[in-house]
Amino acid sequence: KTSFKIAVLPGDGIGPEVVNESTKILNAIGEAFNYTFEFTYGLMGAEAIFKTGNPLPDETLQICKESDAVLFGAIGDPSFDHNPDAKVRPEQGLLKLRKELGLFANIRPLKTYSSLIDKSPVKREVIEGTDIQIFRELVSGIYFGEKFTDEEAGYAYDICKYNREEIIPIVHMAFQEAQKRRKKLTLIDKANVLDTSRLWRKVCKEIAHEYPDVELDFMFVDNAAMQLILNPKQFDVIVTENMFGDIISDEASVIGGSIGLLPSASIGNENALFEPIHGSYPQAKGKGIANPVASVLSTAMMLDYLGLDQAAEKLRQSVEYAIENKYVTADLNDEQHYSTSEVGSFIADYI
Amino acid sequence: KTSFKIAVLPGDGIGPEVVNESTKILNAIGEAFNYTFEFTYGLMGAEAIFKTGNPLPDETLQICKESDAVLFGAIGDPSFDHNPDAKVRPEQGLLKLRKELGLFANIRPLKTYSSLIDKSPVKREVIEGTDIQIFRELVSGIYFGEKFTDEEAGYAYDICKYNREEIIPIVHMAFQEAQKRRKKLTLIDKANVLDTSRLWRKVCKEIAHEYPDVELDFMFVDNAAMQLILNPKQFDVIVTENMFGDIISDEASVIGGSIGLLPSASIGNENALFEPIHGSYPQAKGKGIANPVASVLSTAMMLDYLGLDQAAEKLRQSVEYAIENKYVTADLNDEQHYSTSEVGSFIADYI
Ligand SMILES: CC(C)[C@H](C(=O)O)[C@@H](O)C(=O)O
Ligand SMILES: CC(C)[C@H](C(=O)O)[C@@H](O)C(=O)O
Repeated sequence: KTSFKIAVLPGDGIGPEVVNESTKILNAIGEAFNYTFEFTYGLMGAEAIFKTGNPLPDETLQICKESDAVLFGAIGDPSFDHNPDAKVRPEQGLLKLRKELGLFANIRPLKTYSSLIDKSPVKREVIEGTDIQIFRELVSGIYFGEKFTDEEAGYAYDICKYNREEIIPIVHMAFQEAQKRRKKLTLIDKANVLDTSRLWRKVCKEIAHEYPDVELDFMFVDNAAMQLILNPKQFDVIVTENMFGDIISDEASVIGGSIGLLPSASIGNENALFEPIHGSYPQAKGKGIANPVASVLSTAMMLDYLGLDQAAEKLRQSVEYAIENKYVTADLNDEQHYSTSEVGSFIADYI
Repeated sequence: KTSFKIAVLPGDGIGPEVVNESTKILNAIGEAFNYTFEFTYGLMGAEAIFKTGNPLPDETLQICKESDAVLFGAIGDPSFDHNPDAKVRPEQGLLKLRKELGLFANIRPLKTYSSLIDKSPVKREVIEGTDIQIFRELVSGIYFGEKFTDEEAGYAYDICKYNREEIIPIVHMAFQEAQKRRKKLTLIDKANVLDTSRLWRKVCKEIAHEYPDVELDFMFVDNAAMQLILNPKQFDVIVTENMFGDIISDEASVIGGSIGLLPSASIGNENALFEPIHGSYPQAKGKGIANPVASVLSTAMMLDYLGLDQAAEKLRQSVEYAIENKYVTADLNDEQHYSTSEVGSFIADYI
């Protein structure tokens, strides 16, 4: 297969700017390796609410389902964040998209770049050599359990529910990844308090028998939140439920020195979506200062997923070349810096 | 009032050793200031399970209820952590105690000590001058909501529930604390996903009208997990629900350089409990290497609570004197260090 249908959802804030660099670079890859990427654009997030009243219009969902992969920017708008009563919210679009596409595993690789290591708030000796892969369950747990608010009685609840079938596939993925790496898997949970965490532990222990070469250990989420900063090098592959994964993976992003560098892949049985970890960063919108690297590295994960290993490798090399040569946006270098599109073009040209 | 009944629950692991230094120091304070502290000991945690089958025997609860304040060590034992099926667990004792005593607010102050600042994994320039007070709701939320496991059907759930009456008192406490400080209060929540978080936001906004001099802002928990490491100085007082508070406050503890320094107070309408943040640290049990400072500073918070301001002040000065003069345990100084009881005696003698 040499021709691929890519659904492109630029979304809100800086989403359109960074995704634009990714499509530019995909075109360069297409030329260099003789692939065709066909882009179909869809509305999503606050942008979609303003235009259609729906954060995930049916048409967008359809485009995604018919694609080989989805390239996604970011969603979120301050006008919703400060209004807890808004009934229609951009995040609903993203959550629905994850659910509808069955994207059960959110994968976030975390590495340090030697030329950027001093940008991190954490000391060089603590983080140098960190190489973690986080697997976050993405379509269940408290995000998708029943929610309820009784205004008059003055209470609200959210249910965190998991069944075995929701835990098993991501745990297998995480074990398989650990086998390819340093053979250590850590489950992050709160098994001293939560029934769902105890179920996660049980399932992990059962599945561990199929991967005797991988060492499985367990860490409470409160302790993990400390250990990630005290000694991140102790981790190889991490697997965790949806809410803990949200918190832990954002926390872990400080290690790399800039959240503008971190990609993610959300994988399901039939679909996959690739997005930077950073949000819509509305303050930077339209200024040409957003760092496109997280989106570009998400694109590299997409190339992996599509089986285009050589192209993915080339793209990662190009990004590293740009970073090592300080061809970067202002978040990474105050003195000498380039715009979002200059950095994207530099990488595209290098390819 | 000059005579106080103190319930002492040493608990597991290093709990007994550190609590022992606190009672030693309370006796010194009693002598210096002419107070009487009457100690009544109770079993609690794994220790209590081994001896009575119950992590919180009725007798212990009774002792606590009849006391002016509870001094608590730590609980937890590795034999339970790795056994998700254990029906009786040490943590149940602590959770039940919090609930029975109505300890709705867990308060954790976080400061840096200039002589220890380089022990932190985070860079000096990022953390120097950090001064945060965290208010964590302690007797509701997903910790105390209904839990259920259906082994055969293979699922489990935990319910996170809040009602207004559970949110209001701790929010008032946090606003009042902010008024005495830098007048900034941050609610940490996940209002873009959870109904309970939206209720927290709503209640905070309503109560904010009574504290017009305090600036209230909101931060999503995933972002907060980053911001705490990227720029901890932006925070003054934080208020949050039970589970987020557990994660965020343990994470924040890395800022200070040693978890062995951090105290906490758990306050209710009629009772109060004081405990170090660190756990039972079973590997160090009986070795005389545990840092007693967290327990001793928890004791200072107890003196505040009992209205013994001068004694509390004196105790804090003594601890600072010990730290600045490097009269510390091995976790704070590899080269020259003292045992748990040497450090405790040094502080007691200084008083
Ligand atoms: C926008 C929000 C709903 C989302 C989440 O919490 O999953 C985001 O924080 C993320 O991690 O992708
Ligand atoms: C021991 C455990 C149940 C407890 C909690 O999660 O509340 C502890 O982590 C704490 O923070 O006091």
